[in-house]
Amino acid sequence: MAPQSKLDQVISLAKRRGFVFQAGEIYGGSRSAWDYGPLGTELKENIKREWWQNFVRGREDMVGLDSSIVLPKAVWEASGHVATFTDPLVECTQCHKRHRQDHLIEAFEAKKGRAPQDGMSEIACPDCGTKGQFTEPQQFSGLMKTFLGPVDSEAGLAYMRPETAQGIFVNFANVLTASRKKPPFGIGQIGKAFRNEITPGNFIFRTREFEQMEIEFFTAPEDAPKFFDAWVKDCWDWFLDLGIKEENLRQFDVPEDERAHYSAGTIDFEYRFGFQGSEWGELMGVANRTDYDLSSHAKASGAELSYFNQATGERYTPYVIEPSFGLTRSMMAFLVDAYTEDEAPNTKGGVDKRTVLKLDPRLAPVKAAVLPLSRNENLSPKAKDLAAELRKRWNIDFDDAGAIGRRYRRQDEIGTPFCITVDFDTLEDQAVTIRERDTMAQERVSLDQVATYLAERLNGA
Amino acid sequence: MAPQSKLDQVISLAKRRGFVFQAGEIYGGSRSAWDYGPLGTELKENIKREWWQNFVRGREDMVGLDSSIVLPKAVWEASGHVATFTDPLVECTQCHKRHRQDHLIEAFEAKKGRAPQDGMSEIACPDCGTKGQFTEPQQFSGLMKTFLGPVDSEAGLAYMRPETAQGIFVNFANVLTASRKKPPFGIGQIGKAFRNEITPGNFIFRTREFEQMEIEFFTAPEDAPKFFDAWVKDCWDWFLDLGIKEENLRQFDVPEDERAHYSAGTIDFEYRFGFQGSEWGELMGVANRTDYDLSSHAKASGAELSYFNQATGERYTPYVIEPSFGLTRSMMAFLVDAYTEDEAPNTKGGVDKRTVLKLDPRLAPVKAAVLPLSRNENLSPKAKDLAAELRKRWNIDFDDAGAIGRRYRRQDEIGTPFCITVDFDTLEDQAVTIRERDTMAQERVSLDQVATYLAERLNGA
Repeated sequence: MAPQSKLDQVISLAKRRGFVFQAGEIYGGSRSAWDYGPLGTELKENIKREWWQNFVRGREDMVGLDSSIVLPKAVWEASGHVATFTDPLVECTQCHKRHRQDHLIEAFEAKKGRAPQDGMSEIACPDCGTKGQFTEPQQFSGLMKTFLGPVDSEAGLAYMRPETAQGIFVNFANVLTASRKKPPFGIGQIGKAFRNEITPGNFIFRTREFEQMEIEFFTAPEDAPKFFDAWVKDCWDWFLDLGIKEENLRQFDVPEDERAHYSAGTIDFEYRFGFQGSEWGELMGVANRTDYDLSSHAKASGAELSYFNQATGERYTPYVIEPSFGLTRSMMAFLVDAYTEDEAPNTKGGVDKRTVLKLDPRLAPVKAAVLPLSRNENLSPKAKDLAAELRKRWNIDFDDAGAIGRRYRRQDEIGTPFCITVDFDTLEDQAVTIRERDTMAQERVSLDQVATYLAERLNGA
Repeated sequence: MAPQSKLDQVISLAKRRGFVFQAGEIYGGSRSAWDYGPLGTELKENIKREWWQNFVRGREDMVGLDSSIVLPKAVWEASGHVATFTDPLVECTQCHKRHRQDHLIEAFEAKKGRAPQDGMSEIACPDCGTKGQFTEPQQFSGLMKTFLGPVDSEAGLAYMRPETAQGIFVNFANVLTASRKKPPFGIGQIGKAFRNEITPGNFIFRTREFEQMEIEFFTAPEDAPKFFDAWVKDCWDWFLDLGIKEENLRQFDVPEDERAHYSAGTIDFEYRFGFQGSEWGELMGVANRTDYDLSSHAKASGAELSYFNQATGERYTPYVIEPSFGLTRSMMAFLVDAYTEDEAPNTKGGVDKRTVLKLDPRLAPVKAAVLPLSRNENLSPKAKDLAAELRKRWNIDFDDAGAIGRRYRRQDEIGTPFCITVDFDTLEDQAVTIRERDTMAQERVSLDQVATYLAERLNGA
């Protein structure tokens, strides 16, 4: 199967089964954001919990933070975002629609396999088709504004954060004091961020509202290269440990002229999403932000954001290593990577095609499904009791509609690791049949051992 | 101790120990929001996880959702928010500062113990002190606006949600189809909401950016009263189960003229926060929203938001019972309720005053602290190994600074249920002393039994 077609199937599955819905769909939909349905919410939450445990709670040198989304203008002036967080925008002089110049050029290159000649003259407006009738590019801010307080004016102007990172920098001194940490240590944060993308697209890959998982790790300047390397490795290992196939992940050492204004070195992780044009897309990045942010905020605010090392008697402004993950992009990568088509035996002695999400059990939105063999006054209560018992600990489905084979398929395609069938023998032997998702192997397990059986096989979920 | 003074001490503790920081503090601070430090982030997360498990994941009749914060204007026009989500604002004609008229009147009443006479003539401007010089009230929208897309104009006007609820209503049909649920069933959501409060205040109680935990439970109209009562009970039980003292919680049956425009009945839960003036503050509410929301959105969007009951052959628009929790208010209530001052024995045979947060172990931000008796080349590695082992499962502190008594106090005041001391005997007997927070009782536990010991006493955390 061609990669592009696999991506389309993942998107189709995600919409159909309620991982992801279009935001405001009943009002014609918004391109700005997506809503996460019951399964998507669980999957996203599981990714967050794994990340938090691995990178924050589970590490002695990390603490967590949860800062606000809307921050005063002063923060974004100091961070450089007001001045430099912009995109080049051109307007079609025929239909007056605006487009990102760099995206128009990229699209042309992807289609024609070469760069456009004579500036924009070969490029057609995606809206009205007119060729080469664009204004000169203007810089357009990617910051989303809002107004705070009783007057709707510049005085109340504030911005929604385009990254969670700045909330960490402005709290650096507070955290240092309150949590009694010393560099090297880091602060992790998960939360929403907002960018006024001109051309959102590629499903949940590029949206105006999205979620990040960010770490700002503070270190003595001379140790920054060492921690940069260590974080690149830890991030790489995290994706692989949760099942991403190594052949679908690669590192890109971002050249100086393509880096963000604050970075002395960036390695992007790219995942093979299978987009049309370019297969690979940015999943996350690790950047060496130097002392740019703390120095800028110290200068702009007058606050003391350096660190005095009592052991050496030296004062320094820490360097920052920043592993910045796209949460929603990570979710998309886990879905694409897990999507598999294989064959399963049917009741006629042949095989049927089946779709299965081979998600790591820790990420699977539903950990087990309890399926009474048929709708029956004895089987159903028994199955419901078991489901209720397991639900105290895990997200559990109960399904008694349709043939058992069809119910297995429904669970396979949402990645449920275990299906538990309650059959007529259960009434006699107090045992159930547990089927494993990937191997389809079945095992008879005593009812009172089901929770233990699952606990041993769900990788700690 | 007077309740007001207790609240001040909780706030002081919360700031000092890094539960809560002022947002943008180094830039003079914002009254709009608070940031959650390392301990506050863990506490808030623990409240979320308990809520989600109790009300969503643990219930057969509930599913989760995570919808976007910014939604198109059309959604908020249909919901009635653009027209009615307003506050009466008066402007002082002397200093031109604006205030909420109802808040000025409330403050007057709290101070004088009676209603003001002759309208606003007795009331002084809180900014300049001028008495009775206010404009007629104007309705001011509590919605926070932003702009989407490449043009900064009405065409891109969108609003940040003032409640998570509408994201649930507009996804009702999607969830119904994708998750194959039938009424009675509900959808739960946790997330940020934004209201342009004119006078934010009382610490994290009233802020412009805050978090909600909301349930919209869909039922046949005739069953609405039954489910209303059941949800009131379930919510009440949840707070009590997590340790809120019953004498600090009360229900208020909101009279018709004070209810939101959509409500056919609302019971507010009020907690005794101990505010100046009025001790009690709204913690959450359960409302019967009738079919107002689904009908409004069906009418405005043209989408089919009714439900066809195949068993009875009837089609109806479900009624909605809405338990709506303030997450940040809940956190504040748990902190106030847990705050205790008592006495602990000191080394001189006397007693010292101690502050202890008697948080339920499930909510406690740190589950256990590992404390080597002294900084010593044999004790410290042993203690660090134990901390690292426990950290695989829980949030664990390690502290080797200062006298053991002082370290106990530091843990008591952040609510850590267990302190584990590694002493010189540990090197011989491979055991540690575990001290329980509330009773201060100590027990000797074998090193290889510590995880089991904790697991049995952390109420499933």
